[in-house]
Order: sequence, then structure tokens, then C-alpha cells
Amino acid sequence: MCEASAFYKNQECEETLILKDVALLKPEEDNLWFLVNIFGEQKEIHAKLLEINLLQHKIIFQKI
Amino acid sequence: MCEASAFYKNQECEETLILKDVALLKPEEDNLWFLVNIFGEQKEIHAKLLEINLLQHKIIFQKI
Repeated sequence: MCEASAFYKNQECEETLILKDVALLKPEEDNLWFLVNIFGEQKEIHAKLLEINLLQHKIIFQKI
Repeated sequence: MCEASAFYKNQECEETLILKDVALLKPEEDNLWFLVNIFGEQKEIHAKLLEINLLQHKIIFQKI
């Protein structure tokens, strides 16, 4: 499957899982993001997007 | 392969290809995005991100 999982990355480069198997990612307003995974689980987070690495299946955010 | 292709979507919902097989997507500044695909081709675009649909392998931007 081709989803990616969303993580928070902190100053020490430690990653904390936000949501596995994200299928849809939508920016709502400034730094507000809507995520849905393949199981229909939804999350809305207030964070800064750092990068999306599709080869590593990772969506990396930073808490703000 | 699990990349997604980046497109511009216009008012009529027509999609125009920006870059195929995007492997890495990074926001730089406000609405400035850096994209790299699996062939090492790079693009920097000034656009609004609308959504990323990983099941459809699509990264959808809107020109600004």
C-alpha cells in the first residue's frame, strides 16, 4: 500500500506517531492540517509541515 | 512504486502535470514548495497546496 504515516519530529530529531497509513492530507488554515487514514480515522492538527518523503512513507510535522 | 505526481488544478478542475513521481516535497516559505522526483528532477513552485491524496498518488496545487 502507498500511504505514509504522519509524525511529529522534535528538536532532538525524535519522531512521534500522529497517524498511521494516511491516505489524505489537506491544509485547512495556517498550519492547521486535516488527515484521514485508510481506516477512516481522522485527525486535525496544528503543526508546521517540515517535509513529505514518499520513499520513506513519512509525513513529518513540527509542533508549534 | 509509491510516489505521487504533482498537478495544478484550475477553476474548471482541469489538472496540469507539474512533476511526475515526486519522492520528496518540502515547504520552503509561504506557498513556496520544493519538489524532487525519483529521477532527481527538481522543481520549485509558488502555489497553494490543496490536498495530497496518496491513494490516487496525487499532490494537488492551485496556482496563485
